[in-house]
Amino acid sequence: MSDYDRDNIFAKILRGEAPCVKVYEDDDTFAFMDIMPQAEGHVLVIPKTEACDMMDLNEEMTQKLIVTVQKIARAVKSAIGCPGVMLTQLNGAAAGQTVFHTHVHIIPRYDGVDLGIHATDMVDPSELEKLAQKIRMKI
Amino acid sequence: MSDYDRDNIFAKILRGEAPCVKVYEDDDTFAFMDIMPQAEGHVLVIPKTEACDMMDLNEEMTQKLIVTVQKIARAVKSAIGCPGVMLTQLNGAAAGQTVFHTHVHIIPRYDGVDLGIHATDMVDPSELEKLAQKIRMKI
Repeated sequence: MSDYDRDNIFAKILRGEAPCVKVYEDDDTFAFMDIMPQAEGHVLVIPKTEACDMMDLNEEMTQKLIVTVQKIARAVKSAIGCPGVMLTQLNGAAAGQTVFHTHVHIIPRYDGVDLGIHATDMVDPSELEKLAQKIRMKI
Repeated sequence: MSDYDRDNIFAKILRGEAPCVKVYEDDDTFAFMDIMPQAEGHVLVIPKTEACDMMDLNEEMTQKLIVTVQKIARAVKSAIGCPGVMLTQLNGAAAGQTVFHTHVHIIPRYDGVDLGIHATDMVDPSELEKLAQKIRMKI
């Protein structure tokens, strides 16, 4: 994709130039805790491919991405014990996308708890690490 | 999945026992207009598999599902001319799931237009058919 910005924060995370709380990694995909979670246990899954959004991602990588999403979503549900899980994938600023590297949100959901469209505050990485440990044990 | 209800509305649509405005179909997946759209051009994609949600769907079918989602999302964007596309996939009543057959929402998004979490009104199928025709031409 011609307008992919190699300095976006997820590209930096993939290159090890920015910190993250990692949950999972394989040859093609990477999962980490959202630093501004919409709910406790909010995880992001990204491909190791320069693609702004899922419209730009090739079919093979899209399949690899969804397999990791499914694997991590099951682990999040098991680790967090949430009754619901929402997956969202935003394409384009008009859809609310803010980081232009393809990503899928895995967001735990609970009965009667509304979800803000936007995250609120940054969470201490040490708190995220405790959640990540629980999730990693379920993968 | 043991608690899959074969009388859910999407199962009926797949069996031809309930009407829908079809957008696309292949051996493993099926896409149709959401009768209560959150935005104009809202399409649902489902697997032809008895699975309540994506936690229950096997890996092969999950990959086939996402390939169709990507194909139809590109067609929706091209046909509707929307700058953004949101994909959502809800697992469990606590996540807002109301039909317990795995499905992915493809929802057009526009700058500055907020999206209701829930759909509002049922739309006339003849209006949906006009949109479906536009989308089918772009697949």
